[in-house]
Amino acid sequence: MTPQLAENTATNLTTVQKLQKLIQAPSVTPDDAGTIKWLSEQLYQHGFEILLLEEVQGVKNLIAKRYFSPGPSLAFAGHVDVVPANDKGWQVGPFSGDIVDGCIYGRGAADMKGGIAAMLSATEHLCLQPNIRGTFYWLLTSDEEGEAEYGSKRIAQFLNQHHIVLDACLVGEPTSDKSVGDTIKNGRRGALSGRVQISGKAGHVAYPENTINAAHIAGEIISALTQLVWWKDEPGSKTHLQVTGVTVPNIVDNLVPSECEVTFNIRYSHGYKSDMVKALVEALLEDWQSHLRFVWERPCEPYYTGVKEQNCFLSLTEMAIHQVTGHYPTLSTSGGTSDGRFFAAPQTQVIECGVRNHSIHQVNEHVSISDLVMAEEIYTYVLKSFFCKS
Amino acid sequence: MTPQLAENTATNLTTVQKLQKLIQAPSVTPDDAGTIKWLSEQLYQHGFEILLLEEVQGVKNLIAKRYFSPGPSLAFAGHVDVVPANDKGWQVGPFSGDIVDGCIYGRGAADMKGGIAAMLSATEHLCLQPNIRGTFYWLLTSDEEGEAEYGSKRIAQFLNQHHIVLDACLVGEPTSDKSVGDTIKNGRRGALSGRVQISGKAGHVAYPENTINAAHIAGEIISALTQLVWWKDEPGSKTHLQVTGVTVPNIVDNLVPSECEVTFNIRYSHGYKSDMVKALVEALLEDWQSHLRFVWERPCEPYYTGVKEQNCFLSLTEMAIHQVTGHYPTLSTSGGTSDGRFFAAPQTQVIECGVRNHSIHQVNEHVSISDLVMAEEIYTYVLKSFFCKS
Repeated sequence: MTPQLAENTATNLTTVQKLQKLIQAPSVTPDDAGTIKWLSEQLYQHGFEILLLEEVQGVKNLIAKRYFSPGPSLAFAGHVDVVPANDKGWQVGPFSGDIVDGCIYGRGAADMKGGIAAMLSATEHLCLQPNIRGTFYWLLTSDEEGEAEYGSKRIAQFLNQHHIVLDACLVGEPTSDKSVGDTIKNGRRGALSGRVQISGKAGHVAYPENTINAAHIAGEIISALTQLVWWKDEPGSKTHLQVTGVTVPNIVDNLVPSECEVTFNIRYSHGYKSDMVKALVEALLEDWQSHLRFVWERPCEPYYTGVKEQNCFLSLTEMAIHQVTGHYPTLSTSGGTSDGRFFAAPQTQVIECGVRNHSIHQVNEHVSISDLVMAEEIYTYVLKSFFCKS
Repeated sequence: MTPQLAENTATNLTTVQKLQKLIQAPSVTPDDAGTIKWLSEQLYQHGFEILLLEEVQGVKNLIAKRYFSPGPSLAFAGHVDVVPANDKGWQVGPFSGDIVDGCIYGRGAADMKGGIAAMLSATEHLCLQPNIRGTFYWLLTSDEEGEAEYGSKRIAQFLNQHHIVLDACLVGEPTSDKSVGDTIKNGRRGALSGRVQISGKAGHVAYPENTINAAHIAGEIISALTQLVWWKDEPGSKTHLQVTGVTVPNIVDNLVPSECEVTFNIRYSHGYKSDMVKALVEALLEDWQSHLRFVWERPCEPYYTGVKEQNCFLSLTEMAIHQVTGHYPTLSTSGGTSDGRFFAAPQTQVIECGVRNHSIHQVNEHVSISDLVMAEEIYTYVLKSFFCKS
C-alpha cells in the first residue's frame, strides 16, 4: 500500500455540476466507475495527501488527509457506490443527472452522491479560510450498498493499524425526513440474523400421534419470536425482530412435515449489546432445543454518539444546523445499518447528516437543488466550527 | 357397458397360493396387471355374473353378482392395486410372494391382496352351503391407492344408477393391530385440505412500521389452526389438523416478506359434516381475512356405521370375530380415508375388517400364513351368518 498522487486537473464546478458528474458514473457496487479517481484529484488540488488502499474484490477505498496544524481530527466519510437502477419507470435516464423542476435526478442523487458533492464544496470553502487547526480526512469506499466486507471496515482497520484516532466523523448519508437537517443520526441500531432449522418426525397426517410436526413448531417459534419484549429500548431507538423466511421442503398433502426452516433479522437498539440479544433469543428457543439447529449470521454492532461535556461534535452539528435552518434536528438511531459503525469508538464521535431520504433506492431518486445547497451550507458551517480558530 | 363373460378356467388353489398369484402381478395403481381378469374367472366359476365397467384412465372396475334367492344383499369390496415398491431393503423380490419363516412377503401382501385371497376362499366355502338367501356382490377396483377418482366412486355411482341398494358391505382392508380381528373400522374420518395464501406488504426490515409481514401472519394462523378445539369428537374418532407446508417465496435477509403460503390437512371425526369443519376454520381465519386468499381442496366425506336394532351387520361381524378369535374387536374410525366412504349410505352398513396393518406401504410388507387363515375363517363366518338360513 503506497500513497498515489492524483493527476493535477483543474476544475471549477458548482455543487450541482459536481453531483451531475458523480451521477453520470454508473458506480453500482463494487464498481466505482472512476469516481474515486476524480474525487482524489479534486481533494489533491485542495492540498490533500491521497492514499488508495489495495483493491480487494473490485472494491476501491480512498483515504485522503490534509494536516493543517496541531489540533483535533475530523473525517468526512461516505460511499460512491449505488444500488442498481434496473427498475422501470425512470422519467430520465437513471445515470443522466438531468434536472427536472429544480431537482437533480439519478441513482445515487440522494444516497449519497448529493452528500459527497456538498461535502466537496464545503471542503473547498474551508480550505480558503485562514487559521485552520487540526487534521481533516476524507474516507470513501465503493462497497457500502453490498456486503460492506471490503469497504469502510478495511479503512477503519487501516486507521487503527496506523494509530490514527479520529475525534469526529461526519457521514454524509441522507438522514433528513421532511426538510434538510430536520433529522440526524447519532447512532445506528445493531443487526443480527438467525437461522432456525427444525427437525421433527414425518408421518401420515392420519396418524399424527407418531409424528412431530416441524411446521407446528415453526408456528410456535414465530409467535414467540414476534412477541419478544425489548425492555431496554430507548425513545427513538426501537428494537424490531422480523421473520424473513419460512420454508417446508417437499410439501406433500398427506404428510406431516419433518423439516422446516425459519430465518429472521433483528435490528436492535444501542441499549443492547449483541451478546444480550443473542442470550434473549437463545433462552426463548430453549423450549424447543431438542428439535433445533440454530445459527447466528451477519452480525453488525450498533453505535451511539451521546452528548459529551467537552468538545461535543454532536452539539457542534446541532448548532450548525440551527444556524443554517433555524431549527434543531431530531436525533435518531433508526433505519438500517451504516458505515458509521466502523468508525465509531469511545474517542470518536460519529454523526450522520445529509439530504432527505424519501426517494432513496427507488425509481426516480432525486435531490432538489435547494436541498443540496442547504446541505453544503450545513457541512461548511460544521467544518468552520470544528477547524477554524476563533 | 356390457357384461363380459370371463374365461372358464379351473383352479384349485389354497388361500396362500391365491395370495402368491395376486402378489406376483405387479399391479401398481392404476394397472391391475391381469388380477381383475383372474378374479373374474374365479368368481365366474362360483356362479357370479361378471360386469367390467368401461375403463377410464387405465382403471379397471369389476362388479360381480351372485343372486341366490330373495333376501338381503352383501358386498365384499376391495382393491387390487398396490403402492410402488421402489424402496431398497426388500429381503425377497417385492413381487415374488416368497414365504420366509411362515410369512408371505410382497407388496400388497397385507394391503390388500391378503384380504382378497381370504375373501375368495371364504366365498368358495359359502357357495358349497345349502339354503343360501340373498344376493352377494364383489366390488373390485384398481384405483384405491391413487386419487381414487375413477375407482370405487364409479362403482358406487353405477350401483346407484341401477337402483342396487346394498344392505351390508365388508371391505377387506388391513384393520388389525396386534392380532387379526382385534380392530375393525365401523367408519372413517373425513378429510379436507386447505390452502391459505397470505398477502402482506414488503419492505426493508429496518422500517417495519410500513410493512405487513406475511410470515408473522402465517405464524399466528398456524398457532390458531393447531389450537382449534374439536368439541364434537367422540372416543375413538379424533379430529386432527396438521399443517403440511409453509412457504415464503424469494427469501431475502433484509426484506420483510409480503407473501406466505400455508397448507394444511384435516382428518375429522364423523361427529362433523364437512360444512361444519369448513365453517369453524373459516370463522377462525376471519381475523386475517383482508390479507388472505383461501381455498378448500380434496374433500372426502366421513362415514359411520353404528349399531342398528335389527339386522345389524356390525354386531354380526363382532360375533363372527368373537367366534373365531375368542375376543370382541375394538371399533375404530381412525386412520386414513378408505373406499368404504363411497359405499356407506343410510341403508348400507359398511365395515372394514382384515389382516394386521403393521407392515403396509413399507419395505418387506408381509402377512403371516396363520393371520391369512384366521381372516379367511372370519370372512367365512360372516358370510354364513349373513346368507345361510338357520
